[in-house]
Amino acid sequence: MAVYTEVGDDDLEMFVAQYDIGNVLSCKGIAEGVENSNYLLSTDRGTYILTLYEKRVARADLPYFLGLMDHLAAKGIACPTPIHGRDGAALREVCARPAAIISFLRGLWVRKPSVAHCAALGDALGALHLAGRDFPLRRANSLSLDGWRKLSDEVATGAYEVEPSLGREIAAELEALTASWPLELPVGVIHADLFPDNVFFLDDRLSGLIDFYFACNDFLAYDLAICLNAWCFEPSGDFNATKARALTTAYRKVRRLDDAELAALPVLARGAALRFLLTRLFDWLHHVEGALVKPKDPMEYARKLRFHRGVTDPAAYGLT
Amino acid sequence: MAVYTEVGDDDLEMFVAQYDIGNVLSCKGIAEGVENSNYLLSTDRGTYILTLYEKRVARADLPYFLGLMDHLAAKGIACPTPIHGRDGAALREVCARPAAIISFLRGLWVRKPSVAHCAALGDALGALHLAGRDFPLRRANSLSLDGWRKLSDEVATGAYEVEPSLGREIAAELEALTASWPLELPVGVIHADLFPDNVFFLDDRLSGLIDFYFACNDFLAYDLAICLNAWCFEPSGDFNATKARALTTAYRKVRRLDDAELAALPVLARGAALRFLLTRLFDWLHHVEGALVKPKDPMEYARKLRFHRGVTDPAAYGLT
Repeated sequence: MAVYTEVGDDDLEMFVAQYDIGNVLSCKGIAEGVENSNYLLSTDRGTYILTLYEKRVARADLPYFLGLMDHLAAKGIACPTPIHGRDGAALREVCARPAAIISFLRGLWVRKPSVAHCAALGDALGALHLAGRDFPLRRANSLSLDGWRKLSDEVATGAYEVEPSLGREIAAELEALTASWPLELPVGVIHADLFPDNVFFLDDRLSGLIDFYFACNDFLAYDLAICLNAWCFEPSGDFNATKARALTTAYRKVRRLDDAELAALPVLARGAALRFLLTRLFDWLHHVEGALVKPKDPMEYARKLRFHRGVTDPAAYGLT
Repeated sequence: MAVYTEVGDDDLEMFVAQYDIGNVLSCKGIAEGVENSNYLLSTDRGTYILTLYEKRVARADLPYFLGLMDHLAAKGIACPTPIHGRDGAALREVCARPAAIISFLRGLWVRKPSVAHCAALGDALGALHLAGRDFPLRRANSLSLDGWRKLSDEVATGAYEVEPSLGREIAAELEALTASWPLELPVGVIHADLFPDNVFFLDDRLSGLIDFYFACNDFLAYDLAICLNAWCFEPSGDFNATKARALTTAYRKVRRLDDAELAALPVLARGAALRFLLTRLFDWLHHVEGALVKPKDPMEYARKLRFHRGVTDPAAYGLT
């Protein structure tokens, strides 16, 4: 959560005048997204999100993210859509930062996803992967093996603070994944961060997916593995195979998983767990005491990783 | 700015069910108010603010604040109004905190108030003071002389970090104000924090006043002095007497200032400057390095205080 940049009334007025969205009635900084400054903007025509992209998002990646939202929305995926200005552009600048106005998506995220929520997610993830097939832009996943290696080096000296053997465990895992990571699987646009807080529901119906700022091109099944980790473990740490079965079954009704993808799922799930273990560990070690943003527990993902290391057959995920 | 408490979807649903405001469509934590957790709540009936009162607001004061907003709104003052639940209560609990749903007020605050904005403020402040006359509850101003003394003790050892002689200056000022502070002036309900960010405008028309969580009973002219400090100094530090004249003239058209109030204005303005110097200095000294909330510069108010020390006649404020 963050509002890093404060947009004054004058700047706002000049910015909004470049769009055909009516007159501003209010503009509130919202505590959403760690990466960007977000405002809930209300005009006499509707409600929008104003996003200022802060330094953690590379400017060169913005056409990919905004273009992807345009593309997906055009294909019927419920997701935020960039509003284009009178000049046709969706990306411009305010307060010396790249900025865009995005449509506002109704809904709440569920804190305790049920089996039915997991099924709805699987359906939406499958539809997302199909809709992304003909998106023409490309963006490499900076948080795959190479990125993990870099992060692993950066947390190497501090990891012991969290758990004495954690650094060794990460190094060993990285070596194992380097050896076993799939070379070829169906690729496409993945969301790469589809945690419960990025999936909105209204009356238990999925109302949309948000936050495409980690989206990239990678193995489609890796996206499913991220969701297995984020949605199918209980707060106790136990893996809920019923939820996993609901998620994967719904996904497979929309998009077929081939044999190689099924076989790779345990190793993809280990990679997905390592990815969030590393970024959480990094944030944990660089956390400022007393800052408002509370870092997430890296050990949650170390425990998920250990679970997947014990999985040899995708049947453990409820797949049949 | 802060969201300290995260309200989950389940808690929210149960809470909102106690009101007749329709079904929740979205709920976003907003970066507004340092004291409380605020959410922008949208339902199929309208937009509201959900406030969870954190520990900096005394629970015993909440009936005063909420009752005052009810009272003022009934008198036609444009301000947020507590929504009463099906049981008639405006104050209840969520996530173990006192909480209320308040009507949402449209508008933006102006970063660079003009003379016309200051006149609109004076008019609204006068109307606020008249509307508060028959409000039956009482709350002492905890940030008057006694409060300043306590704060002064707490910052005494750290003040030199900001400016070597600042501690001595504060002690001397406190002594001077103790000797010269008025004993009797017209009293009533004051807002006590009517800075530009608490006054909303739409198309240069004042659309409402917000944030009554410092409201209390004190000298009415002290509220005007707070506004002189908050609205009539330029970013350069210069006092803009044209703005001050616009503010006070508009105020006096609504509520007469008697001779004693006029004569007291310079000492009230010194007190108002000391009050914000002390709280800002306290926050500055207790600031956590790297935290998202950037403390406000205490020296801005030391400079305002010095200006007022040189004022012997209220004519300096543009009053005639």
